[in-house]
Amino acid sequence: MSESLVVGLDIGGTSTRALVATTTGTVLGRGRAGGGNPTTHGADAAAGELRLALTAALAPVDPGRVSAAAMGLAGAGRLLADPVARAAFDRVWDQVGLRCGYDVTGDALAAYASGTPHPDGSIVIAGTGAIAGEIRDLTLHRVADGHGWLLGDAGSGFWLGREAVRRTLAAIETGQPRSGLPDLVMTELLGDPATGGGPRAGPARRTVDALVQAVTARPPIALAALAPLVVRAARADDPVAADVIATAARLLAGSVGRIRGDGDRGPIVLGGGLLTGDTPLSAALGDALRERWPAAPLVTAGDGAAGAAWLAARTLPDVTDPAALHHRLLGAGVLP
Amino acid sequence: MSESLVVGLDIGGTSTRALVATTTGTVLGRGRAGGGNPTTHGADAAAGELRLALTAALAPVDPGRVSAAAMGLAGAGRLLADPVARAAFDRVWDQVGLRCGYDVTGDALAAYASGTPHPDGSIVIAGTGAIAGEIRDLTLHRVADGHGWLLGDAGSGFWLGREAVRRTLAAIETGQPRSGLPDLVMTELLGDPATGGGPRAGPARRTVDALVQAVTARPPIALAALAPLVVRAARADDPVAADVIATAARLLAGSVGRIRGDGDRGPIVLGGGLLTGDTPLSAALGDALRERWPAAPLVTAGDGAAGAAWLAARTLPDVTDPAALHHRLLGAGVLP
Repeated sequence: MSESLVVGLDIGGTSTRALVATTTGTVLGRGRAGGGNPTTHGADAAAGELRLALTAALAPVDPGRVSAAAMGLAGAGRLLADPVARAAFDRVWDQVGLRCGYDVTGDALAAYASGTPHPDGSIVIAGTGAIAGEIRDLTLHRVADGHGWLLGDAGSGFWLGREAVRRTLAAIETGQPRSGLPDLVMTELLGDPATGGGPRAGPARRTVDALVQAVTARPPIALAALAPLVVRAARADDPVAADVIATAARLLAGSVGRIRGDGDRGPIVLGGGLLTGDTPLSAALGDALRERWPAAPLVTAGDGAAGAAWLAARTLPDVTDPAALHHRLLGAGVLP
Repeated sequence: MSESLVVGLDIGGTSTRALVATTTGTVLGRGRAGGGNPTTHGADAAAGELRLALTAALAPVDPGRVSAAAMGLAGAGRLLADPVARAAFDRVWDQVGLRCGYDVTGDALAAYASGTPHPDGSIVIAGTGAIAGEIRDLTLHRVADGHGWLLGDAGSGFWLGREAVRRTLAAIETGQPRSGLPDLVMTELLGDPATGGGPRAGPARRTVDALVQAVTARPPIALAALAPLVVRAARADDPVAADVIATAARLLAGSVGRIRGDGDRGPIVLGGGLLTGDTPLSAALGDALRERWPAAPLVTAGDGAAGAAWLAARTLPDVTDPAALHHRLLGAGVLP
């Protein structure tokens, strides 16, 4: 009963997940709440979600037994630099009865640690956004991209969705027959095909205008919701979608290349919703990475909250074999 | 004194310009007011600017003598489809004493007509946005791009500005020495070089974060304000800027290629702030266009309000030589 406990948190734009585990790798509690990023949700709302997730995860245990904690979140630097958000998080920490401190790390490091206990390697994430990072001694040493949808996130879900619309507009303007990815995009954004003449330059322009208006009526980031159409069309061997996926893989591999030396042999962890499943993008990126770094083990990211918990646990005195603890908490996720 | 008059209007995002001329090509009045696009400024504000510009231009003449008018504006189709905006414009028309009707054309056609009286040709515009259009019988037949900054405007001022920041971020992440275009961008957005360590991954990441924050703190379209930095750096033979300009020229030529057949021999009019001066982009685009369409005359767009006035005048019974009228109103703008 005196075995100490650790808390790991994975704080994202759409969910906040908490995990409580023993230092021997037994998970005792889990909690989940809504998006808890103070940068995007505001400090109070984020703190509220953090409390919900922590309260649920800590319910089966005495919070006083927790001796280390780590949270991974996008924009960790902004939390650390924002005294209001930091104070709100500190208050929640007291309210749920935690006595230990907590480390704040970027989501990139937490995702890396969810895939491997190796101290040196690379992480590439493609979800709504995209980022690549070099990990040295389990700290984030260098980063490429992660610049957000306006300036970067090359190969991300946003990028895929925007490219899907761009290819659709080009297909219409060059008079391609309606099929494949452009057809999926038009149906998703417009319902049935737009018909009839327009005041300026005929039906093609009318369809183009309707598509542009459908996209610009929503927040730009909503383009990421079209990414699954690209994945679906690529699975059905649509050539336009296959080219979009190939380009995304090339861009993501290029981001890795900005932070990884040609001779590096550490693992490359693939994280984010577009890379952790058996998706065309993870397959294409795996090929591109193997070509450039044939010796690198490719690993799929696991549970980010468990990755953060492992990061918190590994420096505790009673954790004598961090790699074994990693295996118990996270298993092995080597790509086929 | 009984010679009839025409009115031309060039309605843009930053200015509304009106011109009154005789059908023999003598300009009698000009007016200028603020941005008058009803789509971006709202119907009432746009109508107010329209009235200011028209009132000034019509001051020297009897408005009852005006027998034809045309206005070129971006999103002409939206004005025609919006009864509120149309009614507001109609009210202004009555208030300033005009009795004739008015044609509404896209800014692309007005820009084309400001460069040439030839009935068939192409127009390519690069200002804040970018669009290419095929003109047949002095109507806009087909269009490529003009999709706005989120989805397109490839090779536009927005595109140049965003690309300038992207190249700057890449230069920082790959450890390039600070010089040329990246140096101009950093100085413009951050003032002096950012220094010191960051909480996540060192000074490079800190500069990257500061740049991303400086850009995302403003409306996306503000990126277009960085386009002059690209032009300036390209003039100073900076290789990064030269590559950005070359890519923009290729994208603009590609947009022209979507709407112009390989054998087309009509003129190509270059319009918009990035193409009407002696700029590196107009030179690079001129080269790209000459390579693909060696027989096409390349022409610089002139005064859009005069182009619209000519469009209005050319069908009047007392205009027997539209080409001669075009020459008197707009001169000749063939590129060297």
